[in-house]
Amino acid sequence: MSLVIIGTIAYDAIETPFGKTDKIVGGAATFAGLAASYLYHQVKLIGVVGEDFGDDNLNILKSKGIDLDGVQVKKGEKSFFWSGKYHNDMNSRDTLVTELNVLADFDPIVPESYQDCEYLLLGNLTPQVQQTTLDRLRHKPKLVVLDTMNFWMDIAWDDLLSVLKRVDVLTINDAEARQLSGEYSLVKAAEKILQLGPKYLIIKKGEHGALLFGDGGIFSAPALPLAEVYDPTGAGDAFAGGFIGYLAKVGTITFHNMKNAVIFGSALASFCVEKFGTERLRELDENVINQRIAQFTELSKFEIGD
Amino acid sequence: MSLVIIGTIAYDAIETPFGKTDKIVGGAATFAGLAASYLYHQVKLIGVVGEDFGDDNLNILKSKGIDLDGVQVKKGEKSFFWSGKYHNDMNSRDTLVTELNVLADFDPIVPESYQDCEYLLLGNLTPQVQQTTLDRLRHKPKLVVLDTMNFWMDIAWDDLLSVLKRVDVLTINDAEARQLSGEYSLVKAAEKILQLGPKYLIIKKGEHGALLFGDGGIFSAPALPLAEVYDPTGAGDAFAGGFIGYLAKVGTITFHNMKNAVIFGSALASFCVEKFGTERLRELDENVINQRIAQFTELSKFEIGD
Repeated sequence: MSLVIIGTIAYDAIETPFGKTDKIVGGAATFAGLAASYLYHQVKLIGVVGEDFGDDNLNILKSKGIDLDGVQVKKGEKSFFWSGKYHNDMNSRDTLVTELNVLADFDPIVPESYQDCEYLLLGNLTPQVQQTTLDRLRHKPKLVVLDTMNFWMDIAWDDLLSVLKRVDVLTINDAEARQLSGEYSLVKAAEKILQLGPKYLIIKKGEHGALLFGDGGIFSAPALPLAEVYDPTGAGDAFAGGFIGYLAKVGTITFHNMKNAVIFGSALASFCVEKFGTERLRELDENVINQRIAQFTELSKFEIGD
Repeated sequence: MSLVIIGTIAYDAIETPFGKTDKIVGGAATFAGLAASYLYHQVKLIGVVGEDFGDDNLNILKSKGIDLDGVQVKKGEKSFFWSGKYHNDMNSRDTLVTELNVLADFDPIVPESYQDCEYLLLGNLTPQVQQTTLDRLRHKPKLVVLDTMNFWMDIAWDDLLSVLKRVDVLTINDAEARQLSGEYSLVKAAEKILQLGPKYLIIKKGEHGALLFGDGGIFSAPALPLAEVYDPTGAGDAFAGGFIGYLAKVGTITFHNMKNAVIFGSALASFCVEKFGTERLRELDENVINQRIAQFTELSKFEIGD
């Protein structure tokens, strides 16, 4: 039994009001894999990098016990590279450079050892590659979570709708929920999106927390108020990794567990933004994570006496 | 012992994507008073209206048991009138008309029967009138809550800072918290604002809920996800009224009770936006309010087993 994550493994160069980095390790699968690795011990990645992606970088993932048999290293090619600059409010950013490189013709390999996949996270990537990954798994996983973004709604609408029919949980942000549904109200947006395939929808609202819709219910998770957000890159991926990692750990899909999974996802995302790139996500432990979960409980708990 | 609320009592004309009203009853004190009246039975208003303000309109308040001895009716003058148009996202609006009328030289009268004031809500109004009201109470109330807005930060900065020194709780929205503190991070904004006088700060975030800061703690309250927001007018006032009404009812100021008060404020605000103007706030009862509180509990409750 395993948790398989497909997504980008990349070099990022990031500029925020707090500083600027050279090429550092990034990518959806990297952030999600690191986040999940603290909650579940059979995390397996699918992705592709170029020859320029140093062993030391892959070792960041290996050192967390993450299986990289599904990660192709393309000789003579370069890794996916993204560079972006965040504005002062940290909610908007400009993409400065996107070099697809190895990602341009990425054909995902699902190793035989990954066929025990029970939990599948289709990280943010072209919907066609997400679909192919699903096709190459002989058994439908117990839970399929898909993360996507506005970019794929703009350029791969039909492919996205097609893969959405096959997933259990969709995670997107509020603007994307509005774009996907054509509804401004998030309640109405959720109603429409839940008719497209997913049984559960998570709307990520950054500093405003997250909403979970499904089973006829709604759950509102807070975000941890932070004095500083150093770098928002990867927060959504860390959320998705923490979310599915928790569900893989507890092993039962109920709305109750989904709610807790949203809190774990939020907690992992809150760590992610505290330092640049994957820096903070690499140095966590169970104790630190449990303390953060306790903060989330404290933050949102109230008791109105009867 | 009583809960005294000062604020505008006005005519509003409102346009939203759902419709358009003629002159209807509005004003901060009206919304706050109605909201508070469901939670506490000694609500007393201070305000001013013109001769054009019909008895039937005042009866809306009287019928809820609200004391209007502190409401002046100016013969031959016209009531404060505000007209606004909301945009599709309901988060931004244009003010079309502001006619101060009786509000221009409003000198608040505190009747002798109001001197038993234990809970005071200084509703959104010029800081100088808020200050004068405090001056005219012989005993410092047990709890003073002040609601204000960006407009007063723009034109009456010194007066606002002066009255802030004398209040216990400040309620503003996130943009206003940033303006008042000069900090983008709400955590940093709260730290600065809590040095200006208030012991507690509530940051209202509309559809994203509210944050309560104070006693070294933070509480994050969800907003009820609504399929439609018909008219956001008065939501902040209804919040403040529900908040202080709950505290007046329970009678003890603790962080625990403050958190519950934020939930009651949020619940009353959620009703307010369901219809135009005060329409929904007029027709509530204890049962309906308790059901809404249960929805808030359901919405944000999670239990992570140990």
